[in-house]
Amino acid sequence: MKKPRRTNVPAHYIIDYIISAMLEPFFSPDRIAIIGASTDPNKMGSNVIRNIIGFGFKGDIYPVNRHALEIEGLRCFPSVKEIPGKADLAIIIIPAPGVAGVLRECGEVGIRHVIIQSGGFSETGPEGAEREKELQEMAREYRIRVLGPNCIGVIDTHTPLNTTFVLGTPQKGDIGFVSQSGAVVVSVMDWAQSKGIGFSRIATMGNQMDVSAMETIHAVAGNPNTRVITTYIEGIADGRKFLQVARDIALKKPFLALKGGQSEKGADAVSSHTGALSGSMEAWEAAFRKSGVLQVNNMQEMFDQARALAWQPLPAGRRVAILTNAGGFGILAVDALQKYGLEMAPLTDKTRSWLRERIPSAGSVNNPVDIVAGTGPATYALALDALLADETVDAVIVIQAPQDWFRQSSVAEVIGEGATLYRKPVITCLMGKTDAEETLALLHKRRIPNVAFPERAASILAVMDKRRQWLDAMKQSGELAAELAAEPASEVPADAARLIKKKDWEALAAAYGVPLPPQKTADTEEKAVRAAGKIGYPVALKLVSAKFTHKSDVGGIRLDLHSDDDVRRAWHEISAAADKAGADMQGVLVQKMLKGGQEVIIGIKQDAQFGGLVVFGTGGTEVELYKDVCTAIAPLDPVEAARLIDGTVAGRKLQGWRNMPPRDRKAVTDILIRMSQIAANHPEIAEMEMNPLYVLEDGNGAFALDIRGSSS
Amino acid sequence: MKKPRRTNVPAHYIIDYIISAMLEPFFSPDRIAIIGASTDPNKMGSNVIRNIIGFGFKGDIYPVNRHALEIEGLRCFPSVKEIPGKADLAIIIIPAPGVAGVLRECGEVGIRHVIIQSGGFSETGPEGAEREKELQEMAREYRIRVLGPNCIGVIDTHTPLNTTFVLGTPQKGDIGFVSQSGAVVVSVMDWAQSKGIGFSRIATMGNQMDVSAMETIHAVAGNPNTRVITTYIEGIADGRKFLQVARDIALKKPFLALKGGQSEKGADAVSSHTGALSGSMEAWEAAFRKSGVLQVNNMQEMFDQARALAWQPLPAGRRVAILTNAGGFGILAVDALQKYGLEMAPLTDKTRSWLRERIPSAGSVNNPVDIVAGTGPATYALALDALLADETVDAVIVIQAPQDWFRQSSVAEVIGEGATLYRKPVITCLMGKTDAEETLALLHKRRIPNVAFPERAASILAVMDKRRQWLDAMKQSGELAAELAAEPASEVPADAARLIKKKDWEALAAAYGVPLPPQKTADTEEKAVRAAGKIGYPVALKLVSAKFTHKSDVGGIRLDLHSDDDVRRAWHEISAAADKAGADMQGVLVQKMLKGGQEVIIGIKQDAQFGGLVVFGTGGTEVELYKDVCTAIAPLDPVEAARLIDGTVAGRKLQGWRNMPPRDRKAVTDILIRMSQIAANHPEIAEMEMNPLYVLEDGNGAFALDIRGSSS
Repeated sequence: MKKPRRTNVPAHYIIDYIISAMLEPFFSPDRIAIIGASTDPNKMGSNVIRNIIGFGFKGDIYPVNRHALEIEGLRCFPSVKEIPGKADLAIIIIPAPGVAGVLRECGEVGIRHVIIQSGGFSETGPEGAEREKELQEMAREYRIRVLGPNCIGVIDTHTPLNTTFVLGTPQKGDIGFVSQSGAVVVSVMDWAQSKGIGFSRIATMGNQMDVSAMETIHAVAGNPNTRVITTYIEGIADGRKFLQVARDIALKKPFLALKGGQSEKGADAVSSHTGALSGSMEAWEAAFRKSGVLQVNNMQEMFDQARALAWQPLPAGRRVAILTNAGGFGILAVDALQKYGLEMAPLTDKTRSWLRERIPSAGSVNNPVDIVAGTGPATYALALDALLADETVDAVIVIQAPQDWFRQSSVAEVIGEGATLYRKPVITCLMGKTDAEETLALLHKRRIPNVAFPERAASILAVMDKRRQWLDAMKQSGELAAELAAEPASEVPADAARLIKKKDWEALAAAYGVPLPPQKTADTEEKAVRAAGKIGYPVALKLVSAKFTHKSDVGGIRLDLHSDDDVRRAWHEISAAADKAGADMQGVLVQKMLKGGQEVIIGIKQDAQFGGLVVFGTGGTEVELYKDVCTAIAPLDPVEAARLIDGTVAGRKLQGWRNMPPRDRKAVTDILIRMSQIAANHPEIAEMEMNPLYVLEDGNGAFALDIRGSSS
Repeated sequence: MKKPRRTNVPAHYIIDYIISAMLEPFFSPDRIAIIGASTDPNKMGSNVIRNIIGFGFKGDIYPVNRHALEIEGLRCFPSVKEIPGKADLAIIIIPAPGVAGVLRECGEVGIRHVIIQSGGFSETGPEGAEREKELQEMAREYRIRVLGPNCIGVIDTHTPLNTTFVLGTPQKGDIGFVSQSGAVVVSVMDWAQSKGIGFSRIATMGNQMDVSAMETIHAVAGNPNTRVITTYIEGIADGRKFLQVARDIALKKPFLALKGGQSEKGADAVSSHTGALSGSMEAWEAAFRKSGVLQVNNMQEMFDQARALAWQPLPAGRRVAILTNAGGFGILAVDALQKYGLEMAPLTDKTRSWLRERIPSAGSVNNPVDIVAGTGPATYALALDALLADETVDAVIVIQAPQDWFRQSSVAEVIGEGATLYRKPVITCLMGKTDAEETLALLHKRRIPNVAFPERAASILAVMDKRRQWLDAMKQSGELAAELAAEPASEVPADAARLIKKKDWEALAAAYGVPLPPQKTADTEEKAVRAAGKIGYPVALKLVSAKFTHKSDVGGIRLDLHSDDDVRRAWHEISAAADKAGADMQGVLVQKMLKGGQEVIIGIKQDAQFGGLVVFGTGGTEVELYKDVCTAIAPLDPVEAARLIDGTVAGRKLQGWRNMPPRDRKAVTDILIRMSQIAANHPEIAEMEMNPLYVLEDGNGAFALDIRGSSS
């Protein structure tokens, strides 16, 4: 008998699972109390109860209103205390001053889940914040989980439950949506209806006085009906928690995010809007990359891509075939694929000759395959099958310009049927208004996303490919780490705290295993000569002075010294320069003179939202001007370090360029990881930077020639 | 009595006007012969005649068909020769082999305008090309202007005339559309119907055997009903003609272009598609910039922007105010504005305090102005008026998230009325499906474009701003040119041809007024010392050898020589190095040693489609790696030269950066213009490049240290 296989589930998975399970009553309660239910159609309390009933909630509904006997045909209760069976979810929609009283009553009768939709709390100013604090303490006292206040509640299309006041019914589907803005949810629901986009769960978080953004995202993403999670995020309280939760989710399901407040001005609007703190955009982008979250630019893109990711398999590679009945659209699709970094599938000779016999002679059997105007569903069926069967094809875009010879719906049906025979993504762009509704219905039935213009199909495939690459990279991470000769120390060196206090950044870097060039300080001419002899010529001499950190500005550097005499002369020149500049010369640093290397910069800094960041790029004095740098969140694993390097021109140059030899990229990767450990281990270091890190030819290592830092 | 003011109309304006007038019968004929008209609904000849009748053409229609007596109730003729009154436009829709015969008949009866919609010509291969050549000769013989073959004809919504076979009627409007692809027209018409986009004229060009792309664009753009011209272009025959015509049009009307075949692969598809030659993308982008054509990325963008440019005034500046009832969308709009380089209007204190008294206390009177949920048309009316009246506001985006308290159509009506009081653009983003149709109708009546999400409003305003800037730059061009001290020679220097033949690029540059550093060649040590003394120390010595152009590779350069002794030593070192490398030392170039300058590159090259190009950017050995270069079409005027410089990091660095002083930007502008003259005057120079052009501090000039070239 085999032993049952044991899977290694990290502890935080289990904790998050429990938290998410504890939030279930928000989405699938059995008995709901609606405090503030109303018969007055001008009040939100009227819309909410009508939505709950109208959406088909199957459990018990208890309207609570002191002044009514019956609402929407249901018996009404003067308070939650009078409800016979205990409700497991209460919704509060009464004016702010009364909320505390009814929340206490909920606590007293043992209701553990409450959605406060009322506004008038921390979003309005100090007085409201005071009120919110009172609610927070009360929630803690009675152990009530509270969603809101100042939110529009939740929707679960499968329960079904709709606690919002918004008219209009979202379609059942597999996209989960969590939004920091209620208005964004309202308009997305509105817009999605006409686009065939269906939802599993939708949740808004309001002021997050208790249930956090990450908990809400977890509850929506963790739901089995959710295949893709979409989010509108302005700012979050705990960046590190976001990284962990988002990555856990993204490993299982595609996670799309639209970040509001990207610009400086946008960030201003965020603070005045929800009071949430928005981190710098580079940090957010790095966080999305690290956790596998797919960042989108706008709403349309988010749901275009969500639908495709929910419906279609991921492509195995980036080679796309285009099938079209109009050359112009083939060209536009090729342009878009190129723009998004995808490739044209070459197609096998077999495919081409097979197609040649079956499409009009005016058509093209090279990719894009152009079956020209006048062809119909039969030709589409044959060509699509040939392309999907071709091993050089990873995905297919099917385009049909409007035509009057065949019903477009027949083409839709043919594509829907043909695509199911293969595990390759198919995106259509069937244009034409004649039987558009039937066409869309047939495509959606087969889970084929249709777009209005070919460019959008390319953008969808690009995001699918990005996700595939990230999942592949996640698998690789473990393997690559093993390959690296020296596993970097993740433990904190014994004397790290002391070195940081002393601001001895060189020693700290060395303690973490960052290689410094052979070097020695010397406080007399004789000692300098001896040090040079020991290190071996050629050497460089650098002024040591507490007053001047930019030594070159005062003439405090002498390079490429080849003899004892050179060193003596350099000593005197530096002394004279120091005197002239009024520097307190404490001696010189005698450093092995390195040559023929490439200068890169590695920096670390702390971000308010995500903690330690690592920056890599082209080094030198013009770093800020050319901005050839990329940012990542610390700590880095080898795959992340490699991606950080590859994101820059400096990284491409490391691989060798023109008559320059390839440099020691492996050494750079290693040092990047070590620096990222420093960033992760020491939040008290505000900034630390080696500029340049001097990278020698492959196999000869890289050395930090100048290290600076500052601590908080 | 005042003299009548004489306007300076360039000759090509008049010629183009005449050409365009001569094409009028294609769009507004009086009597049309339809050769190939058919009663068989499966033939295009049936669709065409039904479209001409159905679209309401008011002139005479003569179906020509040997086998029918009557088609669609009209008397049918066996040939054009039998038609009683002469037709002024003939449309041919019969199979390719018969086309030549009927074209000759058209010629014989004196028809001077023919649209050949039949396919089967040069687009299908050599046999078809042969047939097309025959038609071309015949057209020349009879002086017939031919549109096509292989096109879908034209539409004029005002005549009204629709010669296409496409079902569906485009709406009357003010957008002109010219497309190199018939399929693109078909799908755009189809899609535009549901978006409230109307057209003045639409034309397709097919194989352009006679009437060219530029003539067609001219005829559509020149029509008084056209307020904006949109084009789908794959490739054109005469790039220089495009530049001239496009600029003339763009000075009068906004000109939008979607370029198909941008990518390498896309360009492949172009050649196999229409046989047209597609230039390199950089050249196209430069051509669009030079001629004021607004380049778009896709169809949706093109018509989004066309509608706005047709309907709304241009903004006077780039400061935008946002009016919203939902904070989240305000944030997304701000993000998008920032992304597109627009600014947030600061708003005056007066506006803010006026608004403070009129909007809910939870709202924000800072830009974005948030009037929060629950407000309706009255609040929108007040806030919009306050923003439009504010002198710090150049344009307004009005956003409404869906809400149930007020009819959205009332908000639409309020905005439409309020916007007409000011000459500032207003773009709306009213979301909500309830009375969407009525809302759109009301907005369109007032010529207000509405978009689905705020990002698109920002992209529209960005393009409007781009057009305003280009028009401003056109005005400036003349003024700036006058400011420049030395008007560059546009005449060809007398000995230019000889210098090009000798490949003496330095002398050629000098003949065009490009400053070289003080320098002198010397073929002996003594002459070198004398030359150095004359030039003044410090100097540099550079090996002169026919064999080695890259002198530094063989140790052929010695810099920063301060004395006669230095020069002698350098002479011997260079001699030794030349010997060792096997170079035929002809002497040395003694050059004034320049210091503290910035290295930039200026290059010129020839493009197959647009002729001379000028490239500017960061110089040095790593030009290709950092790719900090921009391209423009030669010749340059001062404004174009300034824009070319500003498009690069090198240009920003010229203005001074950190502790670097501002450099002589004016000298760079002057040299750029001179180099552009060389590119324009000498197409036989394939490439010529100065790397580096050494730019000294402001007022001290710039010197070409190394010039290379190659000629065809």
